[in-house]
Amino acid sequence: MSRFFSQKYSALEPYTPGEQPRDMKYVKLNTNESPFPTSQKAVRAAAEAAERLRLYSDPECTLLTEKLCEVYGLARDEVVFTNGSDEILNFAFMAYCDAEHPAAFPNITYGFYPVFAAVNLLPYEELPLREDFTIDTEAYLGIHKTVFLANPNAPTGIALRPEEIARIAESNPDNVVVVDEAYVDFGAESCLPLTRKYENLLVAQTFSKSRSMAGARLGFGVGNPALIRDLNTIRYSTNPYNINSMTLAAGVGVLSDEEYTRKNCLAIRENRAFAAEELKKLGFTMTDSLANFLFARHPAVSGETIYRELKAKGVLVRHFTKPEICEYNRITVGTREQMQILLDKVKEVLEEHL
Amino acid sequence: MSRFFSQKYSALEPYTPGEQPRDMKYVKLNTNESPFPTSQKAVRAAAEAAERLRLYSDPECTLLTEKLCEVYGLARDEVVFTNGSDEILNFAFMAYCDAEHPAAFPNITYGFYPVFAAVNLLPYEELPLREDFTIDTEAYLGIHKTVFLANPNAPTGIALRPEEIARIAESNPDNVVVVDEAYVDFGAESCLPLTRKYENLLVAQTFSKSRSMAGARLGFGVGNPALIRDLNTIRYSTNPYNINSMTLAAGVGVLSDEEYTRKNCLAIRENRAFAAEELKKLGFTMTDSLANFLFARHPAVSGETIYRELKAKGVLVRHFTKPEICEYNRITVGTREQMQILLDKVKEVLEEHL
Repeated sequence: MSRFFSQKYSALEPYTPGEQPRDMKYVKLNTNESPFPTSQKAVRAAAEAAERLRLYSDPECTLLTEKLCEVYGLARDEVVFTNGSDEILNFAFMAYCDAEHPAAFPNITYGFYPVFAAVNLLPYEELPLREDFTIDTEAYLGIHKTVFLANPNAPTGIALRPEEIARIAESNPDNVVVVDEAYVDFGAESCLPLTRKYENLLVAQTFSKSRSMAGARLGFGVGNPALIRDLNTIRYSTNPYNINSMTLAAGVGVLSDEEYTRKNCLAIRENRAFAAEELKKLGFTMTDSLANFLFARHPAVSGETIYRELKAKGVLVRHFTKPEICEYNRITVGTREQMQILLDKVKEVLEEHL
Repeated sequence: MSRFFSQKYSALEPYTPGEQPRDMKYVKLNTNESPFPTSQKAVRAAAEAAERLRLYSDPECTLLTEKLCEVYGLARDEVVFTNGSDEILNFAFMAYCDAEHPAAFPNITYGFYPVFAAVNLLPYEELPLREDFTIDTEAYLGIHKTVFLANPNAPTGIALRPEEIARIAESNPDNVVVVDEAYVDFGAESCLPLTRKYENLLVAQTFSKSRSMAGARLGFGVGNPALIRDLNTIRYSTNPYNINSMTLAAGVGVLSDEEYTRKNCLAIRENRAFAAEELKKLGFTMTDSLANFLFARHPAVSGETIYRELKAKGVLVRHFTKPEICEYNRITVGTREQMQILLDKVKEVLEEHL
């Protein structure tokens, strides 16, 4: 930190992203990327757009908005696109939180929420999960705070039913409820249809996971047109050209290939069921994940040991040091082959310790 | 605005980007894009990167940082990359301004500065330019504020000498001075070498103009490693994966083609001289622009009329409504052919009015 850095940030602790080794020698199951290649329709569209980089990208994201609206049955004024879904989440913290509207989210969830609150100098409350890592819906009813819920939650993978989110939105009519659906395409039910019923409900999604486009940085928000106008006010006050032309084109391309996306999501669900079953046989306990990852602990070997020894054997999973979850590892669901390698290496680790 | 939008933003007025018509029928001289295609080395690198979008982009921008350091003679810890230079400017407002460190910038400059201040709820002062649109260096000496200077300035194109910036940095040892060099490659002298001498000097640059990559969204900041750490703290607290993989690759590609960039910058300087000379013959007065645009007024026909009638004739230039500059238009310098079309159409407009 320089001596010029504003005092308001003296306690700011940035988010720590998962390791991104550049040498590719790992079976990389640590950042919830898709194991499947990006749709060739997206790749080709991006490559074509690369020929036209001399011009600014379209700040209104016109073609991508039209395509998304067609696929999801939305109107254009219900959508805003961002540089990954981190940006829409940050915008929502900026737009809907202040001293009178503190943020509220689970104590175990996407680790970026407290950072977004801190960088925007916003008060927030972390509500404990239940013992079994489920979200206690009751705790959010009438809380009169701006609620952020990852659904499915991270890193547990456990999802709330849309009816429960609806109750939370209904009971907080003067606050926005933000549902972060980064992992919704792998088996949970989306709250998108609820955005027409609840003017205070904002849904955030990303192209990073189910559409194999983590490297393209594309997220979006869906909500009542008045909310979308707010978020565009923030967007046009920070970075109107927030999405580059290649990513815009790739977005249109991948949305023209929904069958491929569905097939990939189905494969992830099958591989998740397979890996969960096999891990159970090895003695692991797991949350009931509807995401593209498993959240697993072993009763006899510590989470940290499993993480470290798997890494030494070339398999990278995500380990968190937070006390409540430090016995767990978050394991991205990959291809069947990757899951088999994981299981083989896990067996080796266990054999060395049991 | 929704009823949920935080009161703190009740007066926020977003930045208005230049028109981005999507039909391409205009000779587009309104947003200072390069008229030259992006380097094929960048295009090819981006297209290759599009094949690997399933993985997150490298948050450390390792390869791009190495390449930039090689080209500019910098050390890795002196550089930070952002999603366009708007993002580095926004980060600088966040990091270096607060109630005790208000921002200071000219009253006529890049129109985004007051918006960055407003969206971050920061106090700021606008210092008047001199009558001839030059910056009054004296006014910034010992001002004890965080200074933002576009150099060359926009939309005037007038540049300060690095010695003048040095005086400003030296006289404000407890404040950061941010030099926004978006247009520096077209004839002005960069302050990059000064960042080693003044620990409070931050230089922002972009790949949008001289490197024909506006659509890729790539900017960077150069400064003392302590400043760069601050800016990375902000970056990792808002959007660590702020640059997508295709843009990272395109950046490396274009930096491998510096001869092409130099050739294009030289062509812009020649076309600027040509267009300026011809506009003078038509009675225009202009600032002494060192940027890739001219800032011109005609004594007999209003700036608004010229803008509107040029647009009707298929030539798009940028018109500002601010009273001090509403008689001017900012005209991007394009190819020799585009300049000839501009001049022909300007002649037609003048003939219809004189």
